[in-house]
Amino acid sequence: MSGNRPRVRELNIIPGLLPPGPLNSITDVAGVRVGHVTLIEGDGPLVPGKGPVRTGVTAILPHDGDILAESVTGVVYTLNGVGEVTGAAEANELGSISGPIMLTNTMNVPRVADAVYDWALAHDSRMGVCHDELEPLVAECSDWYLNDIRGRHVRAEHVLAAIENASGGLPAEGAVGAGTGMSALGFKGGIGTASRILRDGAETFTVGCLALCNFGIREQLRINGVPVGQALLDWRQENRLEAMNPAAMGSSCVIVLATDLPASARQLKRLAVRAGVGLSRTGSLYGHHSGDFVIAFSTAQRHPDYEVAVVPVRRHGENPPGVDQWFQAAAEATEEAILNAIFKAATMVGRDDHISYGLPLEETVAIMRQHGYPGIRLPAPSVTLFPAAMPA
Amino acid sequence: MSGNRPRVRELNIIPGLLPPGPLNSITDVAGVRVGHVTLIEGDGPLVPGKGPVRTGVTAILPHDGDILAESVTGVVYTLNGVGEVTGAAEANELGSISGPIMLTNTMNVPRVADAVYDWALAHDSRMGVCHDELEPLVAECSDWYLNDIRGRHVRAEHVLAAIENASGGLPAEGAVGAGTGMSALGFKGGIGTASRILRDGAETFTVGCLALCNFGIREQLRINGVPVGQALLDWRQENRLEAMNPAAMGSSCVIVLATDLPASARQLKRLAVRAGVGLSRTGSLYGHHSGDFVIAFSTAQRHPDYEVAVVPVRRHGENPPGVDQWFQAAAEATEEAILNAIFKAATMVGRDDHISYGLPLEETVAIMRQHGYPGIRLPAPSVTLFPAAMPA
Amino acid sequence: MSGNRPRVRELNIIPGLLPPGPLNSITDVAGVRVGHVTLIEGDGPLVPGKGPVRTGVTAILPHDGDILAESVTGVVYTLNGVGEVTGAAEANELGSISGPIMLTNTMNVPRVADAVYDWALAHDSRMGVCHDELEPLVAECSDWYLNDIRGRHVRAEHVLAAIENASGGLPAEGAVGAGTGMSALGFKGGIGTASRILRDGAETFTVGCLALCNFGIREQLRINGVPVGQALLDWRQENRLEAMNPAAMGSSCVIVLATDLPASARQLKRLAVRAGVGLSRTGSLYGHHSGDFVIAFSTAQRHPDYEVAVVPVRRHGENPPGVDQWFQAAAEATEEAILNAIFKAATMVGRDDHISYGLPLEETVAIMRQHGYPGIRLPAPSVTLFPAAMPA
Amino acid sequence: MSGNRPRVRELNIIPGLLPPGPLNSITDVAGVRVGHVTLIEGDGPLVPGKGPVRTGVTAILPHDGDILAESVTGVVYTLNGVGEVTGAAEANELGSISGPIMLTNTMNVPRVADAVYDWALAHDSRMGVCHDELEPLVAECSDWYLNDIRGRHVRAEHVLAAIENASGGLPAEGAVGAGTGMSALGFKGGIGTASRILRDGAETFTVGCLALCNFGIREQLRINGVPVGQALLDWRQENRLEAMNPAAMGSSCVIVLATDLPASARQLKRLAVRAGVGLSRTGSLYGHHSGDFVIAFSTAQRHPDYEVAVVPVRRHGENPPGVDQWFQAAAEATEEAILNAIFKAATMVGRDDHISYGLPLEETVAIMRQHGYPGIRLPAPSVTLFPAAMPA
Repeated sequence: MSGNRPRVRELNIIPGLLPPGPLNSITDVAGVRVGHVTLIEGDGPLVPGKGPVRTGVTAILPHDGDILAESVTGVVYTLNGVGEVTGAAEANELGSISGPIMLTNTMNVPRVADAVYDWALAHDSRMGVCHDELEPLVAECSDWYLNDIRGRHVRAEHVLAAIENASGGLPAEGAVGAGTGMSALGFKGGIGTASRILRDGAETFTVGCLALCNFGIREQLRINGVPVGQALLDWRQENRLEAMNPAAMGSSCVIVLATDLPASARQLKRLAVRAGVGLSRTGSLYGHHSGDFVIAFSTAQRHPDYEVAVVPVRRHGENPPGVDQWFQAAAEATEEAILNAIFKAATMVGRDDHISYGLPLEETVAIMRQHGYPGIRLPAPSVTLFPAAMPA
Repeated sequence: MSGNRPRVRELNIIPGLLPPGPLNSITDVAGVRVGHVTLIEGDGPLVPGKGPVRTGVTAILPHDGDILAESVTGVVYTLNGVGEVTGAAEANELGSISGPIMLTNTMNVPRVADAVYDWALAHDSRMGVCHDELEPLVAECSDWYLNDIRGRHVRAEHVLAAIENASGGLPAEGAVGAGTGMSALGFKGGIGTASRILRDGAETFTVGCLALCNFGIREQLRINGVPVGQALLDWRQENRLEAMNPAAMGSSCVIVLATDLPASARQLKRLAVRAGVGLSRTGSLYGHHSGDFVIAFSTAQRHPDYEVAVVPVRRHGENPPGVDQWFQAAAEATEEAILNAIFKAATMVGRDDHISYGLPLEETVAIMRQHGYPGIRLPAPSVTLFPAAMPA
Repeated sequence: MSGNRPRVRELNIIPGLLPPGPLNSITDVAGVRVGHVTLIEGDGPLVPGKGPVRTGVTAILPHDGDILAESVTGVVYTLNGVGEVTGAAEANELGSISGPIMLTNTMNVPRVADAVYDWALAHDSRMGVCHDELEPLVAECSDWYLNDIRGRHVRAEHVLAAIENASGGLPAEGAVGAGTGMSALGFKGGIGTASRILRDGAETFTVGCLALCNFGIREQLRINGVPVGQALLDWRQENRLEAMNPAAMGSSCVIVLATDLPASARQLKRLAVRAGVGLSRTGSLYGHHSGDFVIAFSTAQRHPDYEVAVVPVRRHGENPPGVDQWFQAAAEATEEAILNAIFKAATMVGRDDHISYGLPLEETVAIMRQHGYPGIRLPAPSVTLFPAAMPA
Repeated sequence: MSGNRPRVRELNIIPGLLPPGPLNSITDVAGVRVGHVTLIEGDGPLVPGKGPVRTGVTAILPHDGDILAESVTGVVYTLNGVGEVTGAAEANELGSISGPIMLTNTMNVPRVADAVYDWALAHDSRMGVCHDELEPLVAECSDWYLNDIRGRHVRAEHVLAAIENASGGLPAEGAVGAGTGMSALGFKGGIGTASRILRDGAETFTVGCLALCNFGIREQLRINGVPVGQALLDWRQENRLEAMNPAAMGSSCVIVLATDLPASARQLKRLAVRAGVGLSRTGSLYGHHSGDFVIAFSTAQRHPDYEVAVVPVRRHGENPPGVDQWFQAAAEATEEAILNAIFKAATMVGRDDHISYGLPLEETVAIMRQHGYPGIRLPAPSVTLFPAAMPA
């Protein structure tokens, strides 16, 4: 359903200065794969434990090898900790990430983690017999406004499907996977992705971002600096999420940063901090109740023995693009991924007829044009600047 | 089965200098309750997913009120993060702990967290409907050496029983609850508890500790400073845990500190750091693979609105005992809780006939006496210095 | 010299949504005082150790009592640590700030800290005799582009003058005190301040910010979301700071947040994180070489015994404004303080005839108007919206 | 003056299990150099600002190349932050250490840092002209009990002498350099050093420690686990430091760890945590007022461009000794370095005739023998197990 809404760049809105990768997606980082399972079922009044269902699960696989046997350098950084990323302590202690990175809703976290064990045990008959266990990495936002979250509707089969079907290519965006029931900045939110390319002589490096967006209030929404949320403050205000329930402000945002830069765990933490810059630009205040986390990893090296060799040596003079550009890429990819989540997500009606409106595109274009961006316009229906999204 | 082994103090071994509370237990902190469910079933070769079973679950309830509606000030501190405490990010961001603190084995963590949701949803019909969700606090060590950990044998009913049956009084120690299949410092480990009393004029304060012990190797074991592990290096060495599998070194230790001191989250973090001092004294190096965490909370104030009032004002001159004594109490209670875990735990045979030997008490007494402690002796069988342990 | 340039709000540019305090200054927080000493001497080629001199020192006194005898709750938070705040470890361990908060250039830090000792010893004859010593809190940015930083021209007498002459009222802004030789976002930078008011029924609370700005590059400058830096990219580009020396990018930003909210150290750290949101909005990427720090304190309680009582109890229902508003206030006050630093700072010629241009105001107004803000205009010369600045 | 007291190992007291390096010193790590300047002058009543003087400064140079031009991987870790290590934020952000590591007393920190600038400016004429400035790394303990700390008697010439005269070989220990006026665990303290060797097939690695010891109270002193402090509680108790002034408890301990292991900054932080294990074993509780810090660095790689290449690649199967052994080495070297500081330090009379007694060796030997160590004995006066100490 989000498939026919445009990505932000299709409107000629260009967040930041660095060029995107070919898909403008986290999957521009070679080997990174994304899989969604979207669950939408039922309508009308909430029957706790039964529905309506507006939820899902998303898997990000950090490389295309055996993700149990080979870990990548990685960290989990907390911008505001009122939320959960299981497995964060181990990732940070070892500076590495093993297994899939899973996104879902708050109350599904245990069931998704348990299903990751199902998957891991099926793939590694020695786990728990001859060696230590995986700590599953599962992050969450709460979709309780639209979804029967008490029902914990994501089942093991959904988790396995998200992992097994993960693929390259441009992932579906908007109200898909873990983003199905999410809202952000006063409008329908969900999943978005983007990337940036850094050139270093003949070499190029990529920083990609995938964001699960469920944060903020309408009055703070900024699109490329323009206070669109202020301008839309009265638009269908009777149903504004935060007008109906102020506690809905500041849910959460989970940001996944992938790169092929040869970054150490310390350096990835620095990148993750700059994802916060991108998040700030869109209107987040890292709200009180918001679980705002960044999971950052580098595919530059896979390590079977994860505590020893960390970073490929680069001779002096062979440096990758300056660190400030790394940071800029992380901020810009995050900003654009968040905007893509909001642009791609269509209006959704959920439990108790709660409505989360998709950002009104014509109004947004008009506001942007009033703010000195005359080139912004809706794409013609037939224009497709980017490859078709995967089916969700 | 551990009931008839003595606690360390019953041998006249006195770790530290401060006096213990009446039960020498975390439950000396008023309102703190502990519940265990112990699962032991089957023998012989490991049939992954079936057994043998040597595992369990332990619940610590931080106060005797409604633990969902009222949180306590609390933090989760990481000594070595190769392990998991779910809910840690939220506890640290808000400086508070809600709901029960659960201990179990690594692969049961998701199932225990899911069962905490079962319990919470049953007690709070508005959770996930009108307001945000609990982040369950579940910590783990790995019992894969003795237990069929792949079987994830802790079920929701066990979790609910541990929570519902939690009570004051001296909890069972040794191979009970989450400690059932654990080993520590080259011997059978498990659960231990202890406490210290601080006096401040007419007032007294208590610092209590409960430790889940599954860490370290025999060569490092020190009892009150005496290198007992060195002296016992050859004792039944053919079956020494770490001789059979060096990766068994450095599993994990989860330490729960409770106090009625009016400590802020910042101060509780300082207390938690000193639990590491107590852990160090017993022979831990916070091993590479060891998930060593401290969960610390204060019962001095319960707060329904957890982000505002934090600490009761004390007028100048009314200070509680000096902060150095807080620290000493945390270190000593931790040291003694760990020793109680080891002293109380009897030899256990687990999957594949793996043996984890209980610390040999007569030999230990002899070694301690050789090291200048002539008063140390095994208690007469009829002597009970402390109230009988709760049934596990 | 900066006195006749306007503050950002005088142009009708209104960053954020919350109302400022009466002075729109950190000194709106009762008791907070600011003192500057500005050192400008010589012209022409750099003679290392001699001049030209473009530097200074700024003192912020957290309350109007005896700042040695009574500390306030406070923390030092690191956004990017490539810089220095002496005394940070102690502030964070104890959650409190004692003595004055000093700002200066990098190489003057030791001399300023030593002069703080001169001052402290003169005021407390028992320090170092009967009790422990103060850890001076001194933060820095590097003014080497305009100033003979090797000369370390701030002397003890300057430090004592900044402390002794500190006062309430609107402090001077722009190229004054520690900000004298600083540049930010491709233009002349320095010191700026701002505040926000939160109402809670009959009560009001204030969040104030003072920022020392020496960070970023022109291409990133955003004023209230408008990409002014992009539009001015070619303006006098031959002398752009970062064109002459790319290493000049990402110097540093020191942000001081003061509030009378009854915030604990943990809560002040959360406020400090949101200062980063305000910094991000102006165009900072927390550049690689940038020492970006936030020093945050609450005047709600002064504590002679700094490890015990921390936070005044507030009964349930008496809460101060929601935590999200605290955060919004911190972000907005920081954003506006930074903009004030840039708007108030006039062009300066420094060592080797290096030029740091003041933001061109007419061009800025034109750009802002093109971006949908028709009400923005330069104030008439006679208009003074705010009390006259203190002499620097 | 301390020269004729033995190191702990000369009494046949063997802390830990791993073998020491040839000098049992931080200088066993190739290239590491140590220099002391010791200042002792005057006797009798304190005349603040005049004397008596019992203080000094110690320089540790991390490698034998140009320590300004080439940094090493390094971190600063805080066990208890009530103290100061200048330069810590930058070291931790970049994971590297530049320039000398300086130790001194609290109030001398600014003067020492300023003198490091003198030295750096003399060696690098481009610093502050063409590029950024060094952040000097200066750590402290307070020697106010024996020394006229208000006098800040360490002058620039002393700092330069400590740096310029730094050399390999076994450094002087006890009451020398920064350790001159320090006390620890109820006795005279100061500087101590030790090392451990790890073997990995044909390769060996070294972990070395130098500790500045000024912490703890007598009742907690443990030597190799034996509660020597308890046994000596009444020994000359009328003059016990903490009996005279309880605030003297918990001053500080600065631990410097050097290694040639190819450790990343993240791994060095893990090593630093284990220095806390060694510190705990000697009787520290990381006291409330104690500034307990660990500065850890690896000489495995020097990097001119400090943000890029971090760690030499090691092929799988070529791993250095297991990480647990790294940790054990860090803990043991720290424990022994602290004991060396105490064993080597002779009784000192300072300002106001304050006395800090050297640990009584004969009594200590007797206590140790009573605790099951019959082989412990004072060395014959002519025995020198280790090379003669450098003159202080």
